[in-house]
Amino acid sequence: MGPITGMQMISNTHSGLIIILSCQFVCVCSQEGENNDKFFTHPRNAHALSAYLFAHNHLFYVMELLTAVLLMLLSLSEAPAVPFLRLDVYVHATLELLALVMVAFELCMKLRWLGFHTFIRHKRTMVKTCVLFIQFIEAIVVLVRQTSHLRVTRALRPIFLVDCRYCGAVRRNLRQIFQSLPPFIDILLLLLFFMVIFAILGFCLFSANSADPYFSTLENSIVSLFVLLTTANFPDVMMPAYSKNRWSCIFFIVYLSIELYFIMNLLLAVVFDTFNGVEKMKFKSLLLHKRSAIEHAFQLLVSRQRPDGVCLKQFDGLMRFYRPRMTPQDRFLTFKALNHSGATMLSLQDFYKFYEVIGLKWKVSFTHCHMIILPGCMLNSPEPEHMVYMCVAGSSSLLTVGVSWTRVVPWSYIIFLTIYGIEVLLKITGLGPLTYFSSGWNLFDFSVTVFAFLGLIALAFDMEPFYFIVVLRPLQLLRLFKIKQRYRNVLDTMFELFPRMASLGLTLIIFYYSFAIVGMEFFADVVYPNCCNTSTVAQSYRQINVTIGNRTMLEEGYYYLNNFNNILSSFVTLFELTVVNNWYITMEGVTSQTTHWSRLYFMTFYIVTMVVMTIIVAFILDAFVFRMNYSRKNREPMTEISNTENVCVSLQDMCHSSLVFLGRRSRTKCDLSMKMYEEEIQEWYEEYSRTNLQPDETFHRELDSPEASATNSVN
Amino acid sequence: MGPITGMQMISNTHSGLIIILSCQFVCVCSQEGENNDKFFTHPRNAHALSAYLFAHNHLFYVMELLTAVLLMLLSLSEAPAVPFLRLDVYVHATLELLALVMVAFELCMKLRWLGFHTFIRHKRTMVKTCVLFIQFIEAIVVLVRQTSHLRVTRALRPIFLVDCRYCGAVRRNLRQIFQSLPPFIDILLLLLFFMVIFAILGFCLFSANSADPYFSTLENSIVSLFVLLTTANFPDVMMPAYSKNRWSCIFFIVYLSIELYFIMNLLLAVVFDTFNGVEKMKFKSLLLHKRSAIEHAFQLLVSRQRPDGVCLKQFDGLMRFYRPRMTPQDRFLTFKALNHSGATMLSLQDFYKFYEVIGLKWKVSFTHCHMIILPGCMLNSPEPEHMVYMCVAGSSSLLTVGVSWTRVVPWSYIIFLTIYGIEVLLKITGLGPLTYFSSGWNLFDFSVTVFAFLGLIALAFDMEPFYFIVVLRPLQLLRLFKIKQRYRNVLDTMFELFPRMASLGLTLIIFYYSFAIVGMEFFADVVYPNCCNTSTVAQSYRQINVTIGNRTMLEEGYYYLNNFNNILSSFVTLFELTVVNNWYITMEGVTSQTTHWSRLYFMTFYIVTMVVMTIIVAFILDAFVFRMNYSRKNREPMTEISNTENVCVSLQDMCHSSLVFLGRRSRTKCDLSMKMYEEEIQEWYEEYSRTNLQPDETFHRELDSPEASATNSVN
Repeated sequence: MGPITGMQMISNTHSGLIIILSCQFVCVCSQEGENNDKFFTHPRNAHALSAYLFAHNHLFYVMELLTAVLLMLLSLSEAPAVPFLRLDVYVHATLELLALVMVAFELCMKLRWLGFHTFIRHKRTMVKTCVLFIQFIEAIVVLVRQTSHLRVTRALRPIFLVDCRYCGAVRRNLRQIFQSLPPFIDILLLLLFFMVIFAILGFCLFSANSADPYFSTLENSIVSLFVLLTTANFPDVMMPAYSKNRWSCIFFIVYLSIELYFIMNLLLAVVFDTFNGVEKMKFKSLLLHKRSAIEHAFQLLVSRQRPDGVCLKQFDGLMRFYRPRMTPQDRFLTFKALNHSGATMLSLQDFYKFYEVIGLKWKVSFTHCHMIILPGCMLNSPEPEHMVYMCVAGSSSLLTVGVSWTRVVPWSYIIFLTIYGIEVLLKITGLGPLTYFSSGWNLFDFSVTVFAFLGLIALAFDMEPFYFIVVLRPLQLLRLFKIKQRYRNVLDTMFELFPRMASLGLTLIIFYYSFAIVGMEFFADVVYPNCCNTSTVAQSYRQINVTIGNRTMLEEGYYYLNNFNNILSSFVTLFELTVVNNWYITMEGVTSQTTHWSRLYFMTFYIVTMVVMTIIVAFILDAFVFRMNYSRKNREPMTEISNTENVCVSLQDMCHSSLVFLGRRSRTKCDLSMKMYEEEIQEWYEEYSRTNLQPDETFHRELDSPEASATNSVN
Repeated sequence: MGPITGMQMISNTHSGLIIILSCQFVCVCSQEGENNDKFFTHPRNAHALSAYLFAHNHLFYVMELLTAVLLMLLSLSEAPAVPFLRLDVYVHATLELLALVMVAFELCMKLRWLGFHTFIRHKRTMVKTCVLFIQFIEAIVVLVRQTSHLRVTRALRPIFLVDCRYCGAVRRNLRQIFQSLPPFIDILLLLLFFMVIFAILGFCLFSANSADPYFSTLENSIVSLFVLLTTANFPDVMMPAYSKNRWSCIFFIVYLSIELYFIMNLLLAVVFDTFNGVEKMKFKSLLLHKRSAIEHAFQLLVSRQRPDGVCLKQFDGLMRFYRPRMTPQDRFLTFKALNHSGATMLSLQDFYKFYEVIGLKWKVSFTHCHMIILPGCMLNSPEPEHMVYMCVAGSSSLLTVGVSWTRVVPWSYIIFLTIYGIEVLLKITGLGPLTYFSSGWNLFDFSVTVFAFLGLIALAFDMEPFYFIVVLRPLQLLRLFKIKQRYRNVLDTMFELFPRMASLGLTLIIFYYSFAIVGMEFFADVVYPNCCNTSTVAQSYRQINVTIGNRTMLEEGYYYLNNFNNILSSFVTLFELTVVNNWYITMEGVTSQTTHWSRLYFMTFYIVTMVVMTIIVAFILDAFVFRMNYSRKNREPMTEISNTENVCVSLQDMCHSSLVFLGRRSRTKCDLSMKMYEEEIQEWYEEYSRTNLQPDETFHRELDSPEASATNSVN
């Protein structure tokens, strides 16, 4: 046995180690995009390994994603189809069957890789299998009957999308939603409890008034107060009672104060609190996962003679398998960067930093580190740009506003635009396209300038439909906001939040999709102009010609446009329901054409969007407060520079000249959070490892609530 | 010189010390209710001292308050008066003059006490003086002309209320609002900036559509998008464009996503962040203020021979002046409780705890401390009550719901009510009325039971107007919520928040008052049934008889009820504007009857209420998250027990028997926050006292923003 031991072990027997490390690597470095792979889901034998490798590459992922998207897009052309996308039944049913076969194939690969036992135990995969089975049968039935039946199960199609490798962020969002649910439901019950009490009270007080349709029956009373919770019918619901007795406004004021201004805010507070707790838990779990993987690897690497350290040769062997494309020089530098103690071997403590150091990109530098970092700071720091912006943007602000909706372009505007264009080009050449476009600000500058040029071209060639681009000129003024620290914070938060907001938006769209399918199955074509004459909202659906004097006018209520006639209309209708204002008009219209039970659909949708919206608010709150606390704690704003980690390795001990290598990597939100909660997490970890001998399993058991484990364990 | 020195100094020369300490005491112990007295506002000579003593007692405070309330209530009977409270001009003008003279008298006393120089420098007092002067002139003019002119300055009357000693909480709220303003305005500008860009874009895109009244001119476009910001006109504003081109919904979706779901939430985040910062700053300032007062007192107390400690005799001398009613035994116990080191003298470190220990109430106890606290815990802890509540409330729940709106009272209900009644009586006798009513839960139990009894009586004697009390029976079910920890947390937070919410409500009412006065002066009697026929909202103001077949129905729009005809109507109208839904109907109605500039009033009001509401949300969030973090950190729920501080002093060293005294006091929110942020504040204090030699002044200078100092310095 000698220094070769580690390498031999790696190359011969423990291919599992590489997978552990590579999965780990994926999980840690791009933690915002991927999921943790649990250790017990790793392949057990060669067959499984080949299936695992087949199912874990981008080609497979893309196929998975495309299949899921195709399945979801099918609803554009199924039964209540968008007019210009309508397909014959046999066409879309065949397409569906094709997609389902693809999904079945993917599932089979997963079965091969996981083994039957794990496959059965994994909830999400099981649900997916069941849904697949039902969809298969239904697709065949449709193909045979050549007509669509009531297919509410189509609402379950998003599960195929959620299960995609690339939709990890959506899964995380869903998990967060499910974790916030128990406290949310508790408060919701309190809310509903007060609602019912007030409904009974309102019924007792106001039902005697025949002019008051809102409290005529107990059901009406409850519905009115539910809608009042959303404020959508506010002054109207009060008016009949108020006109009879002025003091009746107290009832409504008390109700709104309790429900809207207190309990609804409490909902936000509870979700925000859960959200914070879950975030910290996530970092703790991640740290634990990383540490145990490293300990695993360390145990395998150390030789028997020297059980307390890993020497360079062993480390080099590991890296050759872990990162085959890394140059020997980079491998050496990584070793050096890890080796803080200066000894010839890496201790476990050194090795703990593996995942941070592995992400560094190395460059040779002939001066000292400080000198290298400084110019970078200069280029990125806002100070020297202040003057430029004050002059350029300040003077052009009046111009751009002044000319924004005329077609005459003054010369000064063109001059400024040229300056902007030159600035953009200089920056791109100076920083290189990749570095340039990785900054949100630069991307913004670029797109604004390009838009301005496009607008000019549109004006020059008189292209009518593109005039709206011209109007976007004032967006240039947004550059002005860079001057003030608070705006920089706000807009930086905005750029940073963008990926997460996009994933939340996608989550919302998935909910929309399910509700749209259900809505289409039950409410397609139920509302039309001049329908709903029996309801209280008939006026909003009216479309009649009114003759006043000698002018004939079309009096339109327009609300018949808010329908579920196809999936696009449904999406718009659901967005309107999300915004909440006047949502009861849509609800009452549909209810008057169908049954009272339709209200359940709308109320459920309201509550679901309320959860998602509350989480969005909690998320923005959390991100912003985090950023502000970070800059307060570290007494520096959280700019792009501070998001970059710089590590210097000086090699003067080898070649006797002071050759300095500089490693850089940009920190993820995860790293920053780790740094932020460093003390707390470290403290917790020490206490934790004192009390638990088998940290990984116990912790994961206590971390995983039943809902979380379903989405957490396997990808 | 001997141990008498300190006492002599106190009794003879330094009456100022007593005042410093007594002001300090007031400020620290009832910190939630009072303001800090700055050191430089203390009286300088005997004349000033007598004025100070005259102006600082409850009689004077009550007079101050009553005068201010009288002045504000006058608007009930002035010009656009509430019908049944109308007074002749000479009556209310005379009353006003009387009240103003009272205010002038109070100001004179303040001038005497503060001295001319400080008086001039104190902003709030100066503003008050100016307002008083204007009001005086106006009141005389009214009395001479025997008719009211346009008196917008009445909107400034709340300043007299705000300046009252008892309205410290309102002042604090106002300060908080002013401190949140700068970041709030920054984000508001961003919001308005996007709004203007979208307004221009919307005008370009939709003005061609003649059926679209919302974007016909640029002004309309801006107003429509401002209203859309509040979602009040949402689907309607989109409908004309949407019915022409389905893709136009993208404009509205993008606008709402950016403005409503992102920037509006950012507003909340910014205010929440400022709020948190201000709270911590407050505790730091308070700690500093307390410490410097104690150091002050310590320097005066120590004798020259022993400059490092205060002995019992000196301490006793201080206490005699500071708390004349304290018994010698209590004074001794306080000394003992302070004396942690066990030495015969108090060090400065011991003395720092002065304000905590001074609040303790002492009781003799013959057993050990633990044994005393335990029964208290037993009585208060929810566990033994679980079973009772599960049985009683669970079984009665169905009953109470079932009978809540019938007039037949089943026997079981009466039995349960009797049990509740007995429980309440037992608890009152067991705990004593004072202890019993100091708990929110007991107060709740009591009022629910009393209400139930009143309801029974109302039923028995057939008193029609009180039937609504019967309906409140289901409120009893709220007791059920005590069972679950989360509900206890929520409802405890609710009880705890109540005083603060009340003060926030009062602040809101002050804003309402000012806006109501302005509204009454400009918009009284401008809306009436069938007015506003030129506006787009004419329908909401309609009141016509419609004949359908042979039935004549009154079709009412009711919105003419939302007017500014007297102060009560104005308040209801302003509440409706606060709830925001359909507020544009009121705005457009008034605008169509007056000028376009009226919109400014409504928009300003919207922004002001948005600030206040955001602060309310931030406040609830903060209070709830604090409570949750507290119970997480200390691994115990924040119940009433943990809010009580217990200190034991054992006197076995004196009388050779183990006589134990137990001191108790309930902790304020301030104490809890101090405990919560203990480490952070302690750390900060150490760093602070290292760097600053004159901590008090420098810190106060850096703490006080211009707005804060105006409200902060003198009472």
